[in-house]
Amino acid sequence: MAKEIKELTSRSENYAQWYQDLVIKADLAENSAVRGCMVIKPYGYAIWEKMQRALDDMFKASGHQNAYFPLLIPKSFLSREASHVEGFAKECAVVTHYRLKSDPDGNGVIVDPMAKLEEELIIRPTSETIIWNTYKNWIQSYRDLPILINQWANVMRWEMRTRLFLRTAEFLWQEGHTAHATRQEAEEETLKILDIYADFAENFMAIPVIKGIKTASERFAGALETYCIEGLMQDGKALQCGTSHFLGQNFAKAFDVKFINRENKEELVWATSWGVSTRLIGALIMTHSDDNGLALPPNLAPFQVVIVPIYKNEEQLSRLNEKASVIMSQLKALGITVKYDNADNRKPGWKFAEYELKGVPVRLAMGARDLDNGTIEVARRDMLTKETVPVETIAGYVKDLLAAIQQNLFQKAFDYRTSVMRPVDSYEEFKVEIEKGGFLMAHWDGTSETEEKIKNETKATIRCIPLAGDPTPGYCMVTGNPSAQRVIFARAY
Amino acid sequence: MAKEIKELTSRSENYAQWYQDLVIKADLAENSAVRGCMVIKPYGYAIWEKMQRALDDMFKASGHQNAYFPLLIPKSFLSREASHVEGFAKECAVVTHYRLKSDPDGNGVIVDPMAKLEEELIIRPTSETIIWNTYKNWIQSYRDLPILINQWANVMRWEMRTRLFLRTAEFLWQEGHTAHATRQEAEEETLKILDIYADFAENFMAIPVIKGIKTASERFAGALETYCIEGLMQDGKALQCGTSHFLGQNFAKAFDVKFINRENKEELVWATSWGVSTRLIGALIMTHSDDNGLALPPNLAPFQVVIVPIYKNEEQLSRLNEKASVIMSQLKALGITVKYDNADNRKPGWKFAEYELKGVPVRLAMGARDLDNGTIEVARRDMLTKETVPVETIAGYVKDLLAAIQQNLFQKAFDYRTSVMRPVDSYEEFKVEIEKGGFLMAHWDGTSETEEKIKNETKATIRCIPLAGDPTPGYCMVTGNPSAQRVIFARAY
Repeated sequence: MAKEIKELTSRSENYAQWYQDLVIKADLAENSAVRGCMVIKPYGYAIWEKMQRALDDMFKASGHQNAYFPLLIPKSFLSREASHVEGFAKECAVVTHYRLKSDPDGNGVIVDPMAKLEEELIIRPTSETIIWNTYKNWIQSYRDLPILINQWANVMRWEMRTRLFLRTAEFLWQEGHTAHATRQEAEEETLKILDIYADFAENFMAIPVIKGIKTASERFAGALETYCIEGLMQDGKALQCGTSHFLGQNFAKAFDVKFINRENKEELVWATSWGVSTRLIGALIMTHSDDNGLALPPNLAPFQVVIVPIYKNEEQLSRLNEKASVIMSQLKALGITVKYDNADNRKPGWKFAEYELKGVPVRLAMGARDLDNGTIEVARRDMLTKETVPVETIAGYVKDLLAAIQQNLFQKAFDYRTSVMRPVDSYEEFKVEIEKGGFLMAHWDGTSETEEKIKNETKATIRCIPLAGDPTPGYCMVTGNPSAQRVIFARAY
Repeated sequence: MAKEIKELTSRSENYAQWYQDLVIKADLAENSAVRGCMVIKPYGYAIWEKMQRALDDMFKASGHQNAYFPLLIPKSFLSREASHVEGFAKECAVVTHYRLKSDPDGNGVIVDPMAKLEEELIIRPTSETIIWNTYKNWIQSYRDLPILINQWANVMRWEMRTRLFLRTAEFLWQEGHTAHATRQEAEEETLKILDIYADFAENFMAIPVIKGIKTASERFAGALETYCIEGLMQDGKALQCGTSHFLGQNFAKAFDVKFINRENKEELVWATSWGVSTRLIGALIMTHSDDNGLALPPNLAPFQVVIVPIYKNEEQLSRLNEKASVIMSQLKALGITVKYDNADNRKPGWKFAEYELKGVPVRLAMGARDLDNGTIEVARRDMLTKETVPVETIAGYVKDLLAAIQQNLFQKAFDYRTSVMRPVDSYEEFKVEIEKGGFLMAHWDGTSETEEKIKNETKATIRCIPLAGDPTPGYCMVTGNPSAQRVIFARAY
């Protein structure tokens, strides 16, 4: 049905094109006039708002507070932490002037050369440096610790190849930056956040994720350890859904942030940072959607239910409006968000396709005969099935159905992942299997050289060393050297 | 009490210094390492979050949706609308490069001259241009209208003299941008938003505001008409609290945004834009606070009630903890936010001063004798009064008290404004009166020349032509020329 209205490329034909079509046609986002920067449209932004609210509640429930730090970072700050600058200097937007002036030739405006900044400013690619420069003034004693702060912000990384949501020059995210008196407390914080991210991914986004540790080469620039949650998209490629970094004392050292500990001795402060971004919307799309469009988990859908009346005349419409109003009250009383679409410029068929495209979890349709029979048609987006049920019990029915859809989306994604997650024991087999996609669990000797060789030869990266993986040691599939445990390989976004 | 701990300059001694002290000492914000950009600290940001939530709910209830547009604007976009570029080009941050590289001399990083942008990008000072360039693709027919979009974002204006919250280079705000099929609808939208702003200012911020129209010289760069709400601070200076602009077809013309109207004719789209910013936090502080610190209206306080136990030993503390837990449940059940501070590293007196400084509306204190007597001490921040009440009715008592405090803060501000809002009929009198501060209602001949002369000679500006002012005509106090109605003058932030 959707195809008649807004044709999507099918996933089997061209997955990348299907994704691009869907983002555009479901009104989630579009490219802007500024290279690599997207416009997030109201429907896409509404999903982001749902994500924000859920995560923000979880952060606050675990003792974190929000704050806001400057967009611009003095160039010299980046250089303070050696690996950090290495990681971020190559792709950043640089502010060099603070004024335009009229072009003397009369062609609009030009940069005023008199308004050159003494020191260039960088649009934040991440905020460790400006934040640790600030924390320096906030921390004197162990009594000032911990600091548990999160920031919702825009950041910019000058990516060369961009894709809506998945990789854009500007993106929205949250970045947590915490400061602690002990190594142990910082490590615990890193893992606590990893658990929050996994909880959010699985229970709100309905995306099963693997918690793990990144290898040295995939580590955040400036971290001692990067933990991650890894999701698997329908096309068999992995997508990193969130990272939590144990930064050790690197940024405290770089910005000279010391405190007097309980033993009255001066010590460097311990740090973590962690973030998830609008990239998650890309993960959401690629995990659940199909050739008809989006399929949104009820916990993140901008509206969970749409009601479409089917009528031949004004009298029928009027009776349907009345009934719909009752149903809507019942649904709202149960905390369900609902839209009633009785717009008269579109036919029901068009509306059905439109809401299918937009991934609304449950669609209710009612005609005059339903009114007479006391029934209503219920269609669930995840299964593309429908059935007719008694209207008097509809609210409770929908409530249960939404929970079932949330669960089913997770289960489908989980089953798919299970079906394509497998051990591989030889490098020959690995090269064959990686072409089929999915997560491959293989032994690796722990060296960056071997990792790099595998990446160059197969385009597969080590997604993580899983925290809950099989702990049995073995031998590296490439070098035959000892391996502590299997790690997870995939091609990735 | 507060003075013993965190000395504030008194308002009478130096109002500007009092403000600065208060922002810093109440942990609202501080200056950052980047000139003119502030760090909004958790307590200040929590107030902003309350403001955001309330405004966002009002925008959504009136049919608006959120979206997100790029941070960066191509330089050429600014030039498209002549008065717009005039207003914003002189104070903007310009991105000219997209990469840093290692300094060959080994001194950190330098801007890579090979990574110069073909066209410079401006950090948005406001987003009309990038948004109308986007709307061009969204609008073909009257059926695509209206578009009612709001964005929560950071913006940057390279101000030379900055003050925390009141005027900063980077600030946070919301900017609404709507598109309409008719002039009338756009004008109605402009006024609808003005009403929402006034409602928010008066009922959440407890700041009485005057709704009015800006004169041509104070108009937004690119607007046909700018509406505003004007507040009056304790020191007798005015502060513009929000603006709503009727943009006519200026931006549609500049970005060639046309639609086919109901009569099947092509027409330019009508526009509005409107915004309030973190500047409102400055208004909140300067309207209600005193020499002891902040006084927050309950509707925006991060927490409305604090409970402080007073104890001599662990046994007393344990009993007080138990009682506090009961009271907190009762308060929470009534939707009241409450903090229990039983930290043992600070004395009750220190805590009292701290929460006074932070403007917590209601403080409850309980000691062992209160437990025996079934009483609790209630202190209200707005009046700095306290009384002892029966503990069994405390929740209902606090609920009523919070409503009374909200109302009282508004009434105090309203009474103050009334006391310093007066008609003035001669320019001689005006020059004397303006030194005393407040709103002066005077006749003006409607010319920019007279307005400019008054501004140069007295530092007073026309805050607005009030919508609900006395409609009696008269004669300009300066030129004697006819005046349609009195306008409102003040010195302003």
